[in-house]
Amino acid sequence: MKFDLYSSDNFARLGKVTTANGEFNTPCFMPVGTQACVKALDANDMQNTLGAKIILANTYHTYLRPGANIIANFGGLHNFTKYKGSFLTDSGGFQAFSLSKNTKHSDEGIMFKSHIDGSIHNFTPASVLKTQYLLNSDICMVLDDLCALPASDERIKASLKRTIYWAKLSLEMKKEFKNNDEETLLKRYSKELYKLEFNKLYDEELKREQNIFAIIQGGTNKTYRKECLEGILECENEHSFDGLAIGGLSVGEPNELMYETVENLTPLMPTNRPRYLMGVGTPLDLVENVARGVDMFDCVMPTRNARNGTLFTSFGKINIKASSMKLDKNPIDSNCSCYACKNFSRAYIHHLFKAGEITFFRLASLHNLHYYLNLMQEIRTNIANKTFDNFYKNFKEIYK
Amino acid sequence: MKFDLYSSDNFARLGKVTTANGEFNTPCFMPVGTQACVKALDANDMQNTLGAKIILANTYHTYLRPGANIIANFGGLHNFTKYKGSFLTDSGGFQAFSLSKNTKHSDEGIMFKSHIDGSIHNFTPASVLKTQYLLNSDICMVLDDLCALPASDERIKASLKRTIYWAKLSLEMKKEFKNNDEETLLKRYSKELYKLEFNKLYDEELKREQNIFAIIQGGTNKTYRKECLEGILECENEHSFDGLAIGGLSVGEPNELMYETVENLTPLMPTNRPRYLMGVGTPLDLVENVARGVDMFDCVMPTRNARNGTLFTSFGKINIKASSMKLDKNPIDSNCSCYACKNFSRAYIHHLFKAGEITFFRLASLHNLHYYLNLMQEIRTNIANKTFDNFYKNFKEIYK
Repeated sequence: MKFDLYSSDNFARLGKVTTANGEFNTPCFMPVGTQACVKALDANDMQNTLGAKIILANTYHTYLRPGANIIANFGGLHNFTKYKGSFLTDSGGFQAFSLSKNTKHSDEGIMFKSHIDGSIHNFTPASVLKTQYLLNSDICMVLDDLCALPASDERIKASLKRTIYWAKLSLEMKKEFKNNDEETLLKRYSKELYKLEFNKLYDEELKREQNIFAIIQGGTNKTYRKECLEGILECENEHSFDGLAIGGLSVGEPNELMYETVENLTPLMPTNRPRYLMGVGTPLDLVENVARGVDMFDCVMPTRNARNGTLFTSFGKINIKASSMKLDKNPIDSNCSCYACKNFSRAYIHHLFKAGEITFFRLASLHNLHYYLNLMQEIRTNIANKTFDNFYKNFKEIYK
Repeated sequence: MKFDLYSSDNFARLGKVTTANGEFNTPCFMPVGTQACVKALDANDMQNTLGAKIILANTYHTYLRPGANIIANFGGLHNFTKYKGSFLTDSGGFQAFSLSKNTKHSDEGIMFKSHIDGSIHNFTPASVLKTQYLLNSDICMVLDDLCALPASDERIKASLKRTIYWAKLSLEMKKEFKNNDEETLLKRYSKELYKLEFNKLYDEELKREQNIFAIIQGGTNKTYRKECLEGILECENEHSFDGLAIGGLSVGEPNELMYETVENLTPLMPTNRPRYLMGVGTPLDLVENVARGVDMFDCVMPTRNARNGTLFTSFGKINIKASSMKLDKNPIDSNCSCYACKNFSRAYIHHLFKAGEITFFRLASLHNLHYYLNLMQEIRTNIANKTFDNFYKNFKEIYK
């Protein structure tokens, strides 16, 4: 993986990440394809209609269904889904924590019950990276130890210690990836693939290059965040992390506290690697955190809000369910060039929602994702032009 | 409306219908867009991806939601949905009969309770044609009097009498359409539009030409069917029906009885007008009834089966839910050139179904509709080449 930092405007940074499966400019937003599918959309929608260069898939979900072995049989997520850009996969730790009952954390890892069939599974720092290897993810996230906020000092300290320990174990996996060939690794990680002849595994040529991002925890406490970051960087040896993520935010704390935590942390982070703020956020969150030096984001908000009828526009949020939309011949946003706005009226989209038509979900998701991706493009243009501060002030007026 | 009959092969007929909004070749299949939307798809999917030249919309559904006045404000279904081919609308009688509680039939029409909010409505032979005028349907269906099969002779006779009487009243509406201009008619049929300035009503130019098809009832009884057909044709004066439909079949009777009823009826029907078999059917039903001289079909089967995971292929039906699909890298049908087959594997589509992804519905619906539309193209080619009989025999072997 290559990260080129081109330019900056105050703390906002303009860069480009190159993976084995393509390039993407930063700051970037990654649409979320939880189950190897961005909800209501397909690979062509993502890469052609929307022009998304990277999407996020969830390790927890794809591990449970269809199973990493099945995806590995296709050579990974790209050939399985036919999306040819880059994939980032999370570690699965967050879902094992939030979706499962009877989850047990220990220094070894996380034991959890599947939310689908109740079967018992273990995620360890090594196992989640092996799974992400089978998925052929371009950017793999390490397993970290989450704690819900607010948390006691004791709990946060224990979480930091474990998060740093797991980061250290994750670097050993990176060493293993580097020191072994694909055939060895695939067969080592998959009982099913072990039985198959390697040269008959896939029809298509694979581009494979696992990059690993570490995750900084520490709640909203400046000192803890600093300690965690330093602990993670101290683990690095001949192998280092390809990027650094800020985890454990946007979990219910006030927005200002999130912004402050990021603002205190980013100046301490290495400048030569991408900074990824996990699970964030609203359009304003993106702009606020770009202003604080963040390069990458992901969030279910555009697609989830779309399905609920809340649509983002150049003049703020609108509710397509509102009865005022019934006879409205205008597009969702006259300034928008998305597929839904180029083709359909608010009245028709309102009708599709009211009538419970599946078609609604696709049109609304295309619109909201276009909005998010276009917002990132505007952000990048303004950083390049050194006009980000002005853009930021105007934007806050619309999305306050 | 123009109907050109080009050629025939035994009883199978090759023709072309020209409406104000385009042409379509017959025999044809009309995808069903119940609520002004073919489920899981949009106008571009229909006209560009699938190349459908005519779709069916339901008067009952669009009348109740969003309401015919709303669609009339857009100039009709074409501008509302952005589908630019032809629309056929049913009369709404079937849904008023099947979806409503406390439906009351009289010689005046059908009184029913909305399945959405329980509000009370009346459909009369005149009102359903007025509604279809507001929808700017290219082909309007008359109101007919349905009876569930099996039915007593008495019930069938009463149904015939009323169906013929309503057909006569429908021809008076045709006279009204011909003798009045658009502004007069729109304002006469819609209280809401009456308030608006006509020249400000629509943004786009409208193509308007209402054609009316009568419906032949009579159960599976040869004599009753003949009587109904004769009664309907006797109503014709300076105005005549633009096509004739066979209603009340595919309602639970054995397939052979449906085929026999059609076989007895089509030789008595005028040759110079399209023959439409309503609500039919399976792929084999289409082939069997083309062989008996039917020109037009509609059915929810391709889209409904798609959503349930049953997919039509050149080698018969397959169940995409089957666990055998889990690792299958082939397309649904290697002989198929549809969007889903060109882009995705059975394994991925199976996964989308199992994971409950909305995306599944679109891909499966595109595949099944492509299958149906392509089947009609094959049928037409074989009629043109005078090889329909051979095609019919081979097809029966696959879809028996």
